[in-house]
Amino acid sequence: MTEIDFERVNSATGPIAVRGAEPGDSLVVELLDVRPAARGFATLIPEIGSLIDQVEAPYTQVFDVDGDTVHMNERISFPLRPMVGVIGVATESETLTNGFAGEHGGNLDNHLHGPGATVYLPVRQPGGMLAIGDMHAAMGDGEVCFTGVEIAGEVTVRVGLLKGKQGRWPVTELAESWVVHGTAGPDFREALDLAVEEGARFLVDQWGFTMEEAFVFLSVACDANVCQACRPQEFSTIARVAIPKVSATPRPFS
Amino acid sequence: MTEIDFERVNSATGPIAVRGAEPGDSLVVELLDVRPAARGFATLIPEIGSLIDQVEAPYTQVFDVDGDTVHMNERISFPLRPMVGVIGVATESETLTNGFAGEHGGNLDNHLHGPGATVYLPVRQPGGMLAIGDMHAAMGDGEVCFTGVEIAGEVTVRVGLLKGKQGRWPVTELAESWVVHGTAGPDFREALDLAVEEGARFLVDQWGFTMEEAFVFLSVACDANVCQACRPQEFSTIARVAIPKVSATPRPFS
Repeated sequence: MTEIDFERVNSATGPIAVRGAEPGDSLVVELLDVRPAARGFATLIPEIGSLIDQVEAPYTQVFDVDGDTVHMNERISFPLRPMVGVIGVATESETLTNGFAGEHGGNLDNHLHGPGATVYLPVRQPGGMLAIGDMHAAMGDGEVCFTGVEIAGEVTVRVGLLKGKQGRWPVTELAESWVVHGTAGPDFREALDLAVEEGARFLVDQWGFTMEEAFVFLSVACDANVCQACRPQEFSTIARVAIPKVSATPRPFS
Repeated sequence: MTEIDFERVNSATGPIAVRGAEPGDSLVVELLDVRPAARGFATLIPEIGSLIDQVEAPYTQVFDVDGDTVHMNERISFPLRPMVGVIGVATESETLTNGFAGEHGGNLDNHLHGPGATVYLPVRQPGGMLAIGDMHAAMGDGEVCFTGVEIAGEVTVRVGLLKGKQGRWPVTELAESWVVHGTAGPDFREALDLAVEEGARFLVDQWGFTMEEAFVFLSVACDANVCQACRPQEFSTIARVAIPKVSATPRPFS
């Protein structure tokens, strides 16, 4: 744990070039299935996370996945909630490791990126260059100790292409909501403000709200929330805003 | 809007003294029903909220409640999600207006405080002195413009008393989880860290986790999230952590 090369964490499978994808388009990635392997682990790493001074570290916890349940030890089990921490495309220009999130996606650590979610990824390079990885058998919002149940596994996706339309960050379709993102450095406030701004852009540009209507609607009907907020650590913080699917918020990009 | 007396916002009904309640106990408040009136409103107030420089303010939005739907105008409607922003007891010593949240509860602005929730309030004064108010027909996590759909209404509660046991902050029982809170000044990070610490206290003190198990479990199985994070504004920020009901986390305080 104390000698991890953080340049190499969160490995992802890819890049996959999508024929015809050009900057300005979106890759439409349906997460049809996310199947974790049988054994995963979490770690406590010295100097990382808000409770690190109250625990012994380094510390490694092994988990066994059995059907819909994750077993932590003989006393503690909890529900499986499989998801991918990393999903993204090539950046516009920056070279980033998969510890980081950004407008390209990357380490978004959104626990809602599980089976049934569809992620619209903003293409910034020819082919898009999709990659997916960093699977978790479960991860809580905040991921406060820095890891979920990190695990190997297989993901089944269907990839489509939407020409000429994209968000600034990835946007995710769920059964009941459209989820926009905001990413920042260590300051969660900045990530939250950026996610709220992205939500306002969708409400105004895609759905014809006035800015006043958008600000009110975000406050009364949308949930601004935490994806990744573990501190201290050196990677990104990520916030999301869930916009409910109502008649005033039909499929965007149409 | 520009002449609001913020000493008088978020009026609550109470205080209700509970016979036999002493410091160290908890009031157990079941929210049996939360019934909003027919008309509510939201406001944009100069200098408050992250998007305030992009809107005209002051601005008031009127809403009509019709069954399970809130109508914002002829184009925009969304689901009713009734809840109480303020629920609390007398503080240990401080005099606070209902704009603020703290260890006594108060303006927790947790949208999960709707019908079906049970809130365990930590008694710090004889009788507890319960008060409930600040109803919203709907409020999004974050309440990013500073108001939900503020509305009159009626709440039906059943109040019980638990002797000699309490959290540092109120703790809320939902169908699937135990929700702990953390409150702070303007810094959401501080509120989040305090909520995570409170979650760890429950896992260790109530359920016998080691601190290492608690920190891992909070990261992989619990959701750390936003209640109130509107900035800039002068009142509290509030975070929550939802601990799933699993066999290792039975009813606390038993």
